Order: sequence, then structure tokens, then C-alpha cells
Amino acid sequence: MRTDDRVTLVEMGPRDGLQNEAAALTPAVRVELIRRLASTGLTHIEAGAFVSPKWVPQMAASDTVLSSLDHDAGIRYPVLVPNMKGFETARAVGARDVSVFAAASESFSRKNINCSIAESLERFRPVCEAARAEGMRLRGYVSCVMGCPYEGPIQPQAVLTVSRALMELGCEEISLGDTIGTGTPAATRQLLAVLADELPVEQLAAHFHDTYGQALANLLVALEAGVRVIDASVAGLGGCPYAKGASGNVGTEDVLYMLNGMGLETGVDLDGVVDVGAWICEHLGRPPASKAARALAARRVSN
Amino acid sequence: MRTDDRVTLVEMGPRDGLQNEAAALTPAVRVELIRRLASTGLTHIEAGAFVSPKWVPQMAASDTVLSSLDHDAGIRYPVLVPNMKGFETARAVGARDVSVFAAASESFSRKNINCSIAESLERFRPVCEAARAEGMRLRGYVSCVMGCPYEGPIQPQAVLTVSRALMELGCEEISLGDTIGTGTPAATRQLLAVLADELPVEQLAAHFHDTYGQALANLLVALEAGVRVIDASVAGLGGCPYAKGASGNVGTEDVLYMLNGMGLETGVDLDGVVDVGAWICEHLGRPPASKAARALAARRVSN
Repeated sequence: MRTDDRVTLVEMGPRDGLQNEAAALTPAVRVELIRRLASTGLTHIEAGAFVSPKWVPQMAASDTVLSSLDHDAGIRYPVLVPNMKGFETARAVGARDVSVFAAASESFSRKNINCSIAESLERFRPVCEAARAEGMRLRGYVSCVMGCPYEGPIQPQAVLTVSRALMELGCEEISLGDTIGTGTPAATRQLLAVLADELPVEQLAAHFHDTYGQALANLLVALEAGVRVIDASVAGLGGCPYAKGASGNVGTEDVLYMLNGMGLETGVDLDGVVDVGAWICEHLGRPPASKAARALAARRVSN
Repeated sequence: MRTDDRVTLVEMGPRDGLQNEAAALTPAVRVELIRRLASTGLTHIEAGAFVSPKWVPQMAASDTVLSSLDHDAGIRYPVLVPNMKGFETARAVGARDVSVFAAASESFSRKNINCSIAESLERFRPVCEAARAEGMRLRGYVSCVMGCPYEGPIQPQAVLTVSRALMELGCEEISLGDTIGTGTPAATRQLLAVLADELPVEQLAAHFHDTYGQALANLLVALEAGVRVIDASVAGLGGCPYAKGASGNVGTEDVLYMLNGMGLETGVDLDGVVDVGAWICEHLGRPPASKAARALAARRVSN
């Protein structure tokens, strides 16, 4: 099924996006967001996170969200599960795709999930085993693949080590997170050269934040390196928790505009995504962060 | 002097930037902006336009701006001159670099400068002859190199034709303007392949707008094609007149962040440009449009 001119977009808006917005939305609005996103042709939509609502209030009631979705409609709804408790809840409400998340930076791992990288992998082991036993699809996130807010630049070898460990735990896909968006094309090329030498590139996803405006340039390099799975967030939902007022997730519309221009197929309707972005931004009371979304919306008004 | 790892940034803020901002600034503020930009290491700063203040009020009193600058300090201050009248005024106030501007789209030429492309070139002929006779540096802008608000996509051959004509008139550099920012990496690659086949790539500059968020990805392709001159605007000053609320010029900070990360030398201090951008944005009463500028400013606050 995977051909060189086909790219899978993994929509991050309902999870990584909303998780980093100030306003917490109701489960009903989140479900409606997911439904609208699915109607644009997106086939992979991250739907929630089974983490403590004390730490991430925006993801509270992810069980309600998940149980409201049709898991038999051919659309994948991955959810984050940090531990067995989260996994069990996710499974109980119908999740078939679960994701675990580790970091390539020791400092980030300790500050973000309060344990070392090695400890986090041990914590994921039973989750991964249970997910595989259930025949679930398992995704592994690696954060800080090009830079860490505490340690600065991160070496590709550190990313390789944790990516390989996640694959050994059974992750079918590794999502490479440039969590603070400090990566540039040169660093992206270097990272993917190291990874693609050791790991199957078709199992790598690019999860690049646009904090410094570099995401599309970095994605271009990733595409050239053979990556065909891209994480993006409708309307660029989600700011950067490490730089107040700065951007976070790259906008799905910006990515789609580039892919369309390059003749890469996604099956996703750009105009439809612009509509969904405008709708959810009204709920959030903020304009879309995606430049393509703003330009396309402006063009509609003037036409 | 030109080596493969050196890039010349041509700062557009005081002209193409301010020209597309709602607020018209006084000549004194514009001079101060130019001085501050020069202090960051920028060596090419577009300083004004000798066009009718009726059409472009933001560029009124460009003669006052020009005559306030030190033209012997090793910094180039190109100015737009649409005709002999503008040229004579520019010369009288010390301009040593003048630019003419044509379009790759007939419709855009007629709507923007009220004549056909061929007529515009004839109008520029005496300007170019006079500039060369004076030993001035002559730059030619070509707008709509990848798309036109009236005609849609533009063929590379049309860009080649007008670029070659401008070179024959004596332009030492052709600035390729993606005026409405609709270009994507594939179109950029195609355009530069056609141009570099016929014209010296070292005489081409990339002037890409970020309206659809594509500018850095397109610049990466241009760099790979050998282009080493990039037009950019501090803080991303300048919206898009063809899409209200959308972005225009790519931010100097975003470009510089990418170039620094790629090990390409510019001699320009990124932190200094962030400072200048914050300062001018206060005068304009709007936040910087550059993502790198916002992220770097946010990082300072949190440190």
C-alpha cells in the first residue's frame, strides 16, 4: 500500500494540539472536532491521552471521547497511555491504537515524566506487551530529537538508542518529535541519515514543531530522506509550553499545501481542513496559527 | 568573495515590509530602523521607493530617508525607481543602488504598474542606461514568479524571458519574487532549474513570501540550486495585499535561524535583528510575524 508518492498525515489537533491550548474543551466539542477531521479524509487522528487530568486538564474525559467514536469506520484513533492504568482505561473504551512516549534527553525525561529514559522504557514494557497481546497498533514517541529545553542540541545517537529500544518493545512506528522546534534542515538531515542507516525509514514519522518557523523546511528534508508519515495539527493548534506565545505543532494546512504542491498524495481535502480549523478556533477564541489556513480563508473572503 | 557557504541577506523591512503595513511611519523612524538594521551586520538594506505617495503613502519622503543615510559606510541602500523621474530624485539624494520592477504575469503588470510587461521594460530602459552611466548598482525585480493573483500559476519560461530582458538592460541581480507566496518546493525547483540553465545563478536572488508558510522550504530548495542572495524582512514586516490578514515577506529572523543552523555565513547577528524587530513592531503596534523572533523573545523572558 505504501508507495513513494503517498504520505500519511497523523492529525495531532485533538491531542497534542488541544493539550497545549489554554482553554480546556468539553468532550462533546472534542468528539465533534474528531468527526469533522475524519470527514476531510484524515485516517489517523490522535484522539486523547490517558494521563492524569491533574497534569493535563485539557485531556480529561478522554474515555468519554474514545467511547463516542466509531472504531469500525476505518479510521485510526491513537491515544497516549503512560502506564498500565492508562492502558486499561483506553482498552476498556475501545482504543485499538496506543502510543507510549519517551525522550531522547535525560533531563527532559526527568522533568516531563519524572523518571530516567531507561526507567520510562521499563514502565512501557508491560503496556507494550499487553497492547501486542491485544493485537493493538503501537506507536512510540521520542521527544527532543533535535533539541531539549534543558540540554540544548541532542545527538542523533541518543535518538537512535531510544528509538531502537521502543521498536524492540514492539512499536510499529516511531514518531520523531522536534518538541521545541529548534531543528534546522542540516540537523534533520544528519538525524535521519543516522536513523535510516539502522532502522526501517518506513517506520519513522516526522513530528516537527514550527516554533522557529523551520518545520516545513525540515519536513522537506525528511521527505527527501524517505519519511512518509507526518504528524501535524489542524490550524497549528497547540502552542509551545517552553516559549510562551510561540508556535507549537506545524499546521496541517501548511503541510498539506506543501504536499499537494509536490504531487504527494494524502487523500485529505485541504479546504475541508481549513473549515475545521476555523470552526475549532472559534471555540478556542483565537485565530488559526497556520499561515496557509489564514491565506486560504482570506482568499475566500475576497472572492 | 562569493563562496558557497556565504549568503547575502537583502533586508526588505524598510521598503517592501513597511510598504505593506497599515501604519505609515515618519521618515525619522524609518531612518532609525535602517540604522538599527545596519548595526546587526546587514549590508544590503532596501531603504525606500521613489513612487507616487498617492499610491504608496508609506514610502512618502523616501528622499528625506535617503539623504539621512551615510552612503560611504560600506552598506548598500537600494531603492525602487519606477521611471526617470524617480531615478532623478533618488540620484539627487545620494542613491547608488537602484531597482526596477517588472512582472512575470501580464495581468499583474497591467494591474500593478498599469502597462504590459514589454512596455514596462521600455520604460525601464532609460533608467537602466542612466544608472549604468552613473556607475550605480542595478537590481531587477520580477514579481509573480510562481503565481499571480489574477492568472494563477506562472510558467518558468515567462520568468526566464523577463529576467533575461532585465539582465540585458543591465541589471546585475534579478530578485525572483513569489509575490503571493503560492510557490511550493516542487515549483521552486522547477523554476530554478529552468533559470539556472540559461542565467548565472549567482545573479539570482530569492524573494519569497511566506503567505502559505512555504518560504523556508522554498528557500532551502533555492539554496540547493545555488542561490546565495535572499530577500527577507525583519519581524516579517509586510502583510499580503492580496489576502487580508495573511503573511507577506518571510521574516529575516526565520531565514537567519535556518542559515545559522545550516552553517551558512551571513555576518548578521540574529539576536540583534530580534531586538530591531521588537522595536519596530512597537512602533507599528503589532506583534512580530516571524516565528523565530517570537520564540527567541519568549525564551529571553523565561530565562
